[in-house]
Amino acid sequence: MNSIIYLIPAFGVIGLIVMAIKSAWVTKQDAGDAKMTELAGYIADGAMAFLKAEWKVLGYFAVFAAILLGWSGSLVEDSSPLIAISFLIGAILSAFAGYLGMKIATKANVRTTQAARTSLAQALKVSFNGGSVMGIGVAGLAILGLGSLFIVLYQLFVPEGAAINGLEVKKAIEVLAGFSLGAESIALFARVGGGIYTKAADVGADLVGKVEAGIPEDDVRNPATIADNVGDNVGDVAGMGADLFGSYVATILATMVLGQEIDASGDNYQGLSPILLPMMIAGLGLIFSIVGTWFVRIKKETDSVQNALNIGNWSSIILTAIASYFAVTMLLPEKLVHRGFEFSSMDVFFAIIVGLIVGALMSLITEYYTAMGKRPVLSIIKQSGTGHATNIIGGLSVGMESTTLPILVLAAGIIASHAFAGLYGVAIAAAGMMATTAMQLAIDAFGPIADNAGGIAEMSQLPEEVRGRTDNLDAVGNTTAATGKGFAIASAALTSLALFAAFVGVSGISSIDIYKAPVLAGLFVGGMIPFIFSSLCIAAVGRAAMDMVNEVRRQFREIPGIMEYKAKPEYEKCVAISTNASIREMIAPGAIALISPIIVGFTFGPEVLGGMLAGVTVSGVLMGMFQSNAGGAWDNAKKSFEKGVEINGQTYFKKSEPHKASVTGDTVGDPFKDTSGPSMNILIKLTSIVALIIAPHIAQKNPASADLNSSPKIEAVTPVSGASETPRLPEK
Amino acid sequence: MNSIIYLIPAFGVIGLIVMAIKSAWVTKQDAGDAKMTELAGYIADGAMAFLKAEWKVLGYFAVFAAILLGWSGSLVEDSSPLIAISFLIGAILSAFAGYLGMKIATKANVRTTQAARTSLAQALKVSFNGGSVMGIGVAGLAILGLGSLFIVLYQLFVPEGAAINGLEVKKAIEVLAGFSLGAESIALFARVGGGIYTKAADVGADLVGKVEAGIPEDDVRNPATIADNVGDNVGDVAGMGADLFGSYVATILATMVLGQEIDASGDNYQGLSPILLPMMIAGLGLIFSIVGTWFVRIKKETDSVQNALNIGNWSSIILTAIASYFAVTMLLPEKLVHRGFEFSSMDVFFAIIVGLIVGALMSLITEYYTAMGKRPVLSIIKQSGTGHATNIIGGLSVGMESTTLPILVLAAGIIASHAFAGLYGVAIAAAGMMATTAMQLAIDAFGPIADNAGGIAEMSQLPEEVRGRTDNLDAVGNTTAATGKGFAIASAALTSLALFAAFVGVSGISSIDIYKAPVLAGLFVGGMIPFIFSSLCIAAVGRAAMDMVNEVRRQFREIPGIMEYKAKPEYEKCVAISTNASIREMIAPGAIALISPIIVGFTFGPEVLGGMLAGVTVSGVLMGMFQSNAGGAWDNAKKSFEKGVEINGQTYFKKSEPHKASVTGDTVGDPFKDTSGPSMNILIKLTSIVALIIAPHIAQKNPASADLNSSPKIEAVTPVSGASETPRLPEK
Repeated sequence: MNSIIYLIPAFGVIGLIVMAIKSAWVTKQDAGDAKMTELAGYIADGAMAFLKAEWKVLGYFAVFAAILLGWSGSLVEDSSPLIAISFLIGAILSAFAGYLGMKIATKANVRTTQAARTSLAQALKVSFNGGSVMGIGVAGLAILGLGSLFIVLYQLFVPEGAAINGLEVKKAIEVLAGFSLGAESIALFARVGGGIYTKAADVGADLVGKVEAGIPEDDVRNPATIADNVGDNVGDVAGMGADLFGSYVATILATMVLGQEIDASGDNYQGLSPILLPMMIAGLGLIFSIVGTWFVRIKKETDSVQNALNIGNWSSIILTAIASYFAVTMLLPEKLVHRGFEFSSMDVFFAIIVGLIVGALMSLITEYYTAMGKRPVLSIIKQSGTGHATNIIGGLSVGMESTTLPILVLAAGIIASHAFAGLYGVAIAAAGMMATTAMQLAIDAFGPIADNAGGIAEMSQLPEEVRGRTDNLDAVGNTTAATGKGFAIASAALTSLALFAAFVGVSGISSIDIYKAPVLAGLFVGGMIPFIFSSLCIAAVGRAAMDMVNEVRRQFREIPGIMEYKAKPEYEKCVAISTNASIREMIAPGAIALISPIIVGFTFGPEVLGGMLAGVTVSGVLMGMFQSNAGGAWDNAKKSFEKGVEINGQTYFKKSEPHKASVTGDTVGDPFKDTSGPSMNILIKLTSIVALIIAPHIAQKNPASADLNSSPKIEAVTPVSGASETPRLPEK
Repeated sequence: MNSIIYLIPAFGVIGLIVMAIKSAWVTKQDAGDAKMTELAGYIADGAMAFLKAEWKVLGYFAVFAAILLGWSGSLVEDSSPLIAISFLIGAILSAFAGYLGMKIATKANVRTTQAARTSLAQALKVSFNGGSVMGIGVAGLAILGLGSLFIVLYQLFVPEGAAINGLEVKKAIEVLAGFSLGAESIALFARVGGGIYTKAADVGADLVGKVEAGIPEDDVRNPATIADNVGDNVGDVAGMGADLFGSYVATILATMVLGQEIDASGDNYQGLSPILLPMMIAGLGLIFSIVGTWFVRIKKETDSVQNALNIGNWSSIILTAIASYFAVTMLLPEKLVHRGFEFSSMDVFFAIIVGLIVGALMSLITEYYTAMGKRPVLSIIKQSGTGHATNIIGGLSVGMESTTLPILVLAAGIIASHAFAGLYGVAIAAAGMMATTAMQLAIDAFGPIADNAGGIAEMSQLPEEVRGRTDNLDAVGNTTAATGKGFAIASAALTSLALFAAFVGVSGISSIDIYKAPVLAGLFVGGMIPFIFSSLCIAAVGRAAMDMVNEVRRQFREIPGIMEYKAKPEYEKCVAISTNASIREMIAPGAIALISPIIVGFTFGPEVLGGMLAGVTVSGVLMGMFQSNAGGAWDNAKKSFEKGVEINGQTYFKKSEPHKASVTGDTVGDPFKDTSGPSMNILIKLTSIVALIIAPHIAQKNPASADLNSSPKIEAVTPVSGASETPRLPEK
């Protein structure tokens, strides 16, 4: 066994040490006065209560799924009951990743508020360090978990001197797939549950508080305001942490599955290297993400926070790209062959570069479609001038339009990375994109921390300039949230494609031919899944928000003195509504994602399941972009009114009619951009992983007999000699 | 040549004679008093002005496209420059079908108003006869045109004694495909242009008139009211006529292409029969649709209009099904073989039945999702209680959910009809569904006629009871509009699948393997097309509606006395805004639909184009259902307030806050259900037809060399012996 393999968990350990240091630094910052710590305490308690309720349900699910996996793993030769253990480790680490992020975020929020009393630079330092703890922690956990589990499984399954691309290594990686399944299923529930929680609270708080009662956002008089701030933590932080943990693992795993099939021939055949490469790149990405965090700092109040983040982001990406060059050339042999496609180690490096370019372009395009002052958001602002309905039409139109360029970039990326290094190239491109996940997540998680900090500042009635600083950070957080989503969906698409390719290999089919009617039917059904999934998510938000609205209205009506700050609202009732609704409503969409590939696979076989996977992926990517970008654009259209906007020569501010229309759009966009939209990338990966896990069970041992288009009757008939000019399907 | 072929144009001639008789009957009905005829005159003039403007642009397009087609047809052996003529005939007949419908609708509207002064029975008779003229006329034109063109082309190309499934007949049918291309391209522009027209006017009229000025719909003081009523005619009537003309032709044509490949072996080999069968079934469907129209009548004021329509519809469907049995058993040989799939004539009949069942289920499901009093609409009503935003969230959620059951039905229908009779079975199932197009269209066209009749009654300030009768008809029209759309999208999906199969045959490939990376990239790009297409359509409506709103506001402001009926609004300015906007904005989406398959096909070859077609079809069907059903549900949620709805124990009527929220949903739904949604089925068919037309130009003469997954470099390398356990792609 290549000794370089031990380097990988070491990277993870380094990450966790850095995380611990940063976490200690954040914790020892000043948490402000009694009012602030009281409010922060409510938020932290509410978040913890949600996680506990969620974990209880997910615990049952995980144990049940593990038993099922262990049992089925014992049925098939290529598989092993150990997959159950692997699954549980993945599930637990994923839940822990979410917990970690939430714990630090509920500390960093109030400390950021306190820091904002001093300077913008200090506030950025606290909030970004909070985000970094999460980013570095998630990546460290993933690398440590995957790397050490792989070592253990390798020791268990692979005898000394076994062929690298033989059955034993394959089996080890298939058991490792259980880790990814565990991570991704917890991610799905966390994302959907957290997404429903946060948006039910947000929509409910806004509709009654801002629109009906006319009090500001995050006003302490609003009974739903604590639930709203809890939501930022459980949805945007814990949900996102589990989500990116899952993406990161799935991407690495898919590349390992394909890497295992590589014929690494040539003079310097280096054994496991195609399998180790994705983990190695992830490890390097983690180290250079840590380096990158040092560059995120500002000195003066007028310095650009966005620039500071960009410098940190780009330096980690560029350093990782350079390091990848050395990793690729040192690890890989000169010539590699994967499924009959031959390529060089440099081709692999170029595929990584393709991945980085696709990721960067996706972020840029997403930013264009969601940023203030650009044509799409301006068009929504203009359409707010003629009312609620035209604002909605404008946002839906922008969201749909925003799929065009990303899809063209993605299609070009697929073709280019494939041209360089076949399907392994597509997978490694995704791995390259995801390498700096630690930095991406640090930037992403900084947003909700700043948002919360602003909320605490407002609720504690701190001076205007403090709120100004947190608003500055929050505005940057909105942009990074949108670009992060563009990035996540692109990596999910490439990862799904790699998983799809891995599925084809394991399931023993040689093509997925949509010219065959049942496969096309599978494509239709797969395409529909993201629609029903999204429908369930946004309907859940709508229902829970209605309950929240009615509860807030009731409290305003029945508790005298709230408006005069004389009575305290019953925050915990609103927290309970969000918690219960999200736990209840996350079940159905989660079940659809997990069960539908199993039903289709076992009923119609692997090729129809392949068609379904393609349908889920294409439709999921489109729906994800459409919903996330529409939501982001609506949000920033609404925000533009704070500084005043010009429509047909008149200037409008907050509380004007056009602003009210823009609030409607923002509210519709909330579940789009924070519940259903970002769930799409988990949905497509999870469906592919489930398919990969069941592949050995539904494998076609003899692909030649699997011609779905030929009639069962055909064998009884003498072949008709070809008077037709058109080619026929093979009749074997 | 089989003499039965002459029966087909004869069916068309019968249809046109019946149409002329019914048209004469409608024309001689009383058109009411001077005020009514004046208003009806404005509407007719506006509609005609739009058609003229549209035809001018489409004329240039048609001539240009015909030249291109003729030139390219002369380049390839299998093709012919005559395709240009075929294209022009299709285009002209399609435009004529729209004209015909609009001409009769603008006569029937005011006559229905006048009839409503007498009784509901009489009003139904006039309006349904108006619709029948259009339905029977469109079907008659299509059958006469296709049937006689086929006879001419057959005489021209096929020498006596030539093999039926030989090159000559194939060429004749490929030239006939030009007819379908002509019909479908005009349909696309008519649907999109008409859809933009009608919704810009409708949204503009409602936003200022109903919401701001507080005057009723169709009030004569509203400057946009004439444009609104013109819109019903150019969008819902002329647009829909061209649309269904195109669908009808495309379905028949796709079945003919596949039928031509059939090895009709056995004792009673009957020559052309698999090619003639779809035209024959269409002819029988026309005759029994005419019979069905006799059953649509009511006697008393309290009789159900919906029931009368249902009886007419079902009797025509059942009679056609029975007649199909005889047509199939008499025309077809016992045993048929298509592309290696063998089936009997009874299997073909069962496939037709599958098509009829799929169509019926689609209508039922659509009705459930859009009808008043059912769970989906009730949920939107409930969500209107908490404001504009939750109403929109509710409607979007219902629309997304509404794709689930229809897709499952469609997938089952594809698998079942394919199991009976292979790809020919899928095509003939679509042909079976479309057989009673004349009746479907009569029912569909009756809706906008009734809508217009109500508008004229309101504008002429006729007594309440007259408006009550037209409202009754209008409400039924809303339901039939929704179910008609469900039916149209299902038939479009099956037709596209048949065209897709035809494309595979003509382009010389033997599979469309989405496991190949470029094909999957094609699938992504194809899936994106319906999103950008919808975006352009609804953005166009949004922009045009803003112009309309500003113009109406200007007139209310600058023309004194409008509100007191003292001054007449400048109707023609609003008509001009809608006309210009729709002509200008229909170009871009139309161009995308026509040009994108050409670019992909010529750049990446037929297999990638096949992937793209699948993407367009799946995504287009989903987006079509989502948008049409969301729009229909919002519309009926709003309408429910007229009779009062109960939300949380309180009853709300028109002008209440929840009602205002429901108006927002209805307005958002307008472009969804009448512009972009119904355009989806033309988009998917048109893309497939364009692919079919260019197939001979991009055909792969040697499919074995087309393995997209193998590297160009591979040939220089000695094959590596298989240490891998996973199956490889063929390396040939």
